[in-house]
Amino acid sequence: MLVSALLTSVGINTGLCFLFFILYSVLRKQPINYEVYVPRLLAEGKSRRRSHFNLERLIPSPGWVKKAWQLTEDELLSLSGLDAVVFMRIIGFSLRVFAFAGVIGIFILLPVNTSGDQLTSVDFADLTNNSLDVFTISNINSGSYKLWFHFSAVYAVTAFVCYLLYYEYNYISSKRIAFFYASKPQPEQFTILVRSIPVAQGGSVSESVDNFFREYHPSSYLSHVVVRRTRKLRNLINDAKKLYKRLIHLQSYPNENDQRSCCFGLFRRRVDLVDQYEKKLEDLEENLRMEQSEVSLATDEVRAAFVSFNSRYAAATAFHMQQSINPIQWITEEAPEPHDVYWPFFSSSFMKKWLSKLVVIVACILLTILFLIPVVVVQGLTNLNQLEVWFPFLKSILTITFVSQVITGYLPSLILQLFLKIVPPIMEFLSSIQGYISHSAIEKSACNKVLWFTIWNIFFATVFSGSVLYQVSIFLDPKNIPSKLAVSVPAQASFFIAYVVTSGWTSTSSELFRVIPFIGSLVMRPCVKRNPDDELEVPSIPYHRDIPRILFFGVLGITYFFLAPLILPFLLIYLCLAYIIYRNQFLNVYAPKYETGGKFWPIVHNSTIFSLVLMHAIAVGIFTLKKLSLASTLIFPLPILTLLFNEYCRKRFLPIFIAYSAETLILKDREDRNDHSMPEFFERLETAYQDPALLPIQYSPHTDDLNAPLISSSTAV
Amino acid sequence: MLVSALLTSVGINTGLCFLFFILYSVLRKQPINYEVYVPRLLAEGKSRRRSHFNLERLIPSPGWVKKAWQLTEDELLSLSGLDAVVFMRIIGFSLRVFAFAGVIGIFILLPVNTSGDQLTSVDFADLTNNSLDVFTISNINSGSYKLWFHFSAVYAVTAFVCYLLYYEYNYISSKRIAFFYASKPQPEQFTILVRSIPVAQGGSVSESVDNFFREYHPSSYLSHVVVRRTRKLRNLINDAKKLYKRLIHLQSYPNENDQRSCCFGLFRRRVDLVDQYEKKLEDLEENLRMEQSEVSLATDEVRAAFVSFNSRYAAATAFHMQQSINPIQWITEEAPEPHDVYWPFFSSSFMKKWLSKLVVIVACILLTILFLIPVVVVQGLTNLNQLEVWFPFLKSILTITFVSQVITGYLPSLILQLFLKIVPPIMEFLSSIQGYISHSAIEKSACNKVLWFTIWNIFFATVFSGSVLYQVSIFLDPKNIPSKLAVSVPAQASFFIAYVVTSGWTSTSSELFRVIPFIGSLVMRPCVKRNPDDELEVPSIPYHRDIPRILFFGVLGITYFFLAPLILPFLLIYLCLAYIIYRNQFLNVYAPKYETGGKFWPIVHNSTIFSLVLMHAIAVGIFTLKKLSLASTLIFPLPILTLLFNEYCRKRFLPIFIAYSAETLILKDREDRNDHSMPEFFERLETAYQDPALLPIQYSPHTDDLNAPLISSSTAV
Repeated sequence: MLVSALLTSVGINTGLCFLFFILYSVLRKQPINYEVYVPRLLAEGKSRRRSHFNLERLIPSPGWVKKAWQLTEDELLSLSGLDAVVFMRIIGFSLRVFAFAGVIGIFILLPVNTSGDQLTSVDFADLTNNSLDVFTISNINSGSYKLWFHFSAVYAVTAFVCYLLYYEYNYISSKRIAFFYASKPQPEQFTILVRSIPVAQGGSVSESVDNFFREYHPSSYLSHVVVRRTRKLRNLINDAKKLYKRLIHLQSYPNENDQRSCCFGLFRRRVDLVDQYEKKLEDLEENLRMEQSEVSLATDEVRAAFVSFNSRYAAATAFHMQQSINPIQWITEEAPEPHDVYWPFFSSSFMKKWLSKLVVIVACILLTILFLIPVVVVQGLTNLNQLEVWFPFLKSILTITFVSQVITGYLPSLILQLFLKIVPPIMEFLSSIQGYISHSAIEKSACNKVLWFTIWNIFFATVFSGSVLYQVSIFLDPKNIPSKLAVSVPAQASFFIAYVVTSGWTSTSSELFRVIPFIGSLVMRPCVKRNPDDELEVPSIPYHRDIPRILFFGVLGITYFFLAPLILPFLLIYLCLAYIIYRNQFLNVYAPKYETGGKFWPIVHNSTIFSLVLMHAIAVGIFTLKKLSLASTLIFPLPILTLLFNEYCRKRFLPIFIAYSAETLILKDREDRNDHSMPEFFERLETAYQDPALLPIQYSPHTDDLNAPLISSSTAV
Repeated sequence: MLVSALLTSVGINTGLCFLFFILYSVLRKQPINYEVYVPRLLAEGKSRRRSHFNLERLIPSPGWVKKAWQLTEDELLSLSGLDAVVFMRIIGFSLRVFAFAGVIGIFILLPVNTSGDQLTSVDFADLTNNSLDVFTISNINSGSYKLWFHFSAVYAVTAFVCYLLYYEYNYISSKRIAFFYASKPQPEQFTILVRSIPVAQGGSVSESVDNFFREYHPSSYLSHVVVRRTRKLRNLINDAKKLYKRLIHLQSYPNENDQRSCCFGLFRRRVDLVDQYEKKLEDLEENLRMEQSEVSLATDEVRAAFVSFNSRYAAATAFHMQQSINPIQWITEEAPEPHDVYWPFFSSSFMKKWLSKLVVIVACILLTILFLIPVVVVQGLTNLNQLEVWFPFLKSILTITFVSQVITGYLPSLILQLFLKIVPPIMEFLSSIQGYISHSAIEKSACNKVLWFTIWNIFFATVFSGSVLYQVSIFLDPKNIPSKLAVSVPAQASFFIAYVVTSGWTSTSSELFRVIPFIGSLVMRPCVKRNPDDELEVPSIPYHRDIPRILFFGVLGITYFFLAPLILPFLLIYLCLAYIIYRNQFLNVYAPKYETGGKFWPIVHNSTIFSLVLMHAIAVGIFTLKKLSLASTLIFPLPILTLLFNEYCRKRFLPIFIAYSAETLILKDREDRNDHSMPEFFERLETAYQDPALLPIQYSPHTDDLNAPLISSSTAV
């Protein structure tokens, strides 16, 4: 790829970004778009839905940038919880890493690279006609002493990254503990989930739980809630909810009905319709209540229960110790937050769960294989000659410079990015059938899956473009990995630089512009009119989509910084954009749905350590290839030291992210001892883990307050 | 190797075994050998040291076989603890496996193998002139349907072994729990070891421990013992003990001194000598006492302490939970039995421990490499032509049939065995500097090391005889492992059959005869005369030497049963011998030194699963090599199922071997509640973990009772 192709791509994307920024600055001020751009403020009542028109509303203003910039970490913590803070720290961490690497890369390595002439001398007269490869390490002559600059850079950046990793892990650990100390008593702190409960002949699960914990934890056991199979009920409730929404809509806009019936597609008399819906809803609710009372009998009990204790320490003790002589009975787990419980999990049988796990593994493998098809096609695009062989009729078009530049510089990564968009939802679905008991655990697992999928399918598939079997064969022959990496990785430098510009820049600005919700609202607006009393659904940030994306750019940056330092400025711009935009989104758009207390950080740490070791492997290969064997030998201690450092961090910090220590729990328990609200809390605790599907439901209009149904049931279904 | 060579080897070894049996039957009845053959009975006072001479003492009698045979498992349990029971069950388990495999192998596979003619038809007229290879799978024609017999045998034996593994794991788990329930209160049940204790400025470790546990475990904390650095003290005590022994010897045999001084090598006047020794001993003890009082001051404190609680459950809770906010402080571990503590561990500093670990890894690698030298030489012996090339002058000798048969059939495995003898002590030493806090943990780790060393250095080094690099390269190319195994493993069948006969048979009979202790006592007897009041040191069985040996024969049997079924009868004879001989040794020779409660079993389980999967890999290779690709495809589910089974067992049984459950502990605690001896026990508990080097020592004769020094100090040093 030539410099000019890259510049084309940069030009297109800068234009797009500006367009998005300006559009956003204007559109966000239109009340009609409040639901898309400030749903959070709207839900909190901080923004009025309709305001009077003024001219200012049509002029783009960067006020939101200032607001986002001024947001402090403490404010963010109180607004969106610790997870949001951790998310912003990922970006901050990456910024610092690449600022450091950028200084080294641009001011030292780039001049060194251009000074070589292994490939060709740089044509300073006509910069844009140079191949991007002259800015990479490939341009340095074999055996040149200049490679020691790269060697030193590898050592310096590794040391800096490890120092930062330690600092961040330490900081987030302390934040996590402080967050726990500052928290009010929460049901999940006092509760554990017990699974595989054995039941005596003729007894019920409830009796079994009561007997066991009264026998072995008499002084601390408080109460329990047995989990029931509620798949049927949840379906019924969903039906009732839909019906109710329709009904409300009909009642709220009596006059609009006739005009709008075009959307429903048929003409009916309104009154009849309302009566009919009301009747239907009543029937449904009757049905529901019967089903509920049936489920409440012992027949549909699952062998699992939420067991509550009178102190956090007692709950933690029960969680940490194997309870029964038989290790596969009375299995204890930490309870998630009540609204974080993934209830459908409990409805499936043991065999089904086991099979789902197998299915998930197979599905992940299949997805990986199928995904290679678009990747290979995309790789063909960067190679124009190949394309001309495949589609000879394109020859004439491809000779136009601009077209060929767009095709090589912009199209490949755009196509890739579109395909990548579908991966996070698929991975989330796969995780949800894999057997996690909470939404947060599902998201964490999906986050990991998406990350490794991206690294495998974008990084390795692009680098070793070829069949799956070829890729696998490389990893089955471990001693040749460095040399193969050394040949293939630098060759793809230009593709990844373009990838950062297209995928990175566009994804952040489209995140700001919220393309899909915006289009959605545009399409829906003429058909469905919201009831102003309707509860607005505030979205939560999909960590499993955004964290892997940022981390993947981290992997690219760390592996390429010494090969092709030109990638760094583009990365830095991406990170700066992300820094401002995500802060803005936390302020205006996303509300937290659950709180893991920073449990996403270990994923970041592991991925960074992986990138470092990958970078070292590439360095070993490169220095061998460039016939500087002393340097490649001297790199060897680096991965070992990095892994030792990782081992230390695992010991020093990871346990903090898994469970709280005895010291923490006992101190927190003592603090509560004098709290007068505790008896009330314990009373609420008894029913905190009630399956929402079993709570009384009242949608039908034969009640006084129509607008206050027990909506709580809707959140967790 | 020809059948006749194998028969020669069998002949020699049968002769040796008989010789050992007869010698043992006679020698064990001679009072002079009681210390070698019945030290345990002697120490327990069940056998008088000297009895009158009678003729019966000179006639070999098999009475001991009957006695050993009649020993029940309960008797063994009460005599030698659960570890001995587990040890005997390893042999019983192997016996059952190979009896089943033996029936299939001898009655089905062996006739099938001989019926083939891939190599050569069997010469039934002159059986001894056949090569052993005609009895192996190599003799079956490629693509023959007969291979389906082998295929079925692989499935049948895998199923049977897994069933037995499950049964044994279950049985031993229940035994372990029953053993715990039946145990009296033991200090280790109420105690944990706490390490990495942080110390406040100016404070002592003891204060720190007291404050922490009084703060966080006020209701259950009982007492603690801070560990001190006692290397110097232990050296002094050893010196004092040596001196004391000499002194006692001089005083006990006043008249013999002049005759025996030959051994001391110089002439002196006895009285002078005694006086001199007494003076020296007194000085030494004075020195010791000063050192003790110095160590007792805070200066030599290690940041570790044994902390005792008032119930087993409280101790287990403290052990299972992370105590401090900082996960690398207040690290808790289960305490070993007081006499099992490996005190020298605490004397070394953190850096030293860390370095030792690295040294151990390097040492293990070096040992593996160096050990290949004898293995390669031994392999040369089985190949006579090679030997003639190396040592041409041997040509004339090697043409003698008997000599060549001895060299190919007997010598190779004898040499290997001699080299193998030195491995267990080396591995034990390496484990002891690796950082374990108890003798039992050291032995368990050494057991694992010896096992994998044996499998790697005997099995793989023999199979892939070649350089280390060649072996490593095979494992770096995983997809070719089965085919390489399929070529190499059957080729070594005759060597391993001979190995079972020489190494197996000889090792058990020399275990019975106790060759080294016997020779030792022969040599020492004329020089040193034991004081009858001297405490007799009863040996304990070196599990790290004997368990890997039996397990390695298990690996051989499982991998070779379908390749060369001829190995099975020899294995069965070996196991029968071992069954009787080890029971006899537990009765007469070995006394348990510590009790792990059956923690050696998981090693057995893992090694068996490994052999099964290795066997499957070989089967895949063999069926591919023999062009029966359907069979090799159908074998694939087998390793997967085996590993799934292993995973289930890890969940179902392994936790039982790591820690006791809350249920078990609470029940046991409740049982003690009405026990009147508990206050007394708790009193003793306070000093149970006192470093023996710090106990008052009194050897010098200026006390009334000279023969009652606090010998306890000697056991753990």
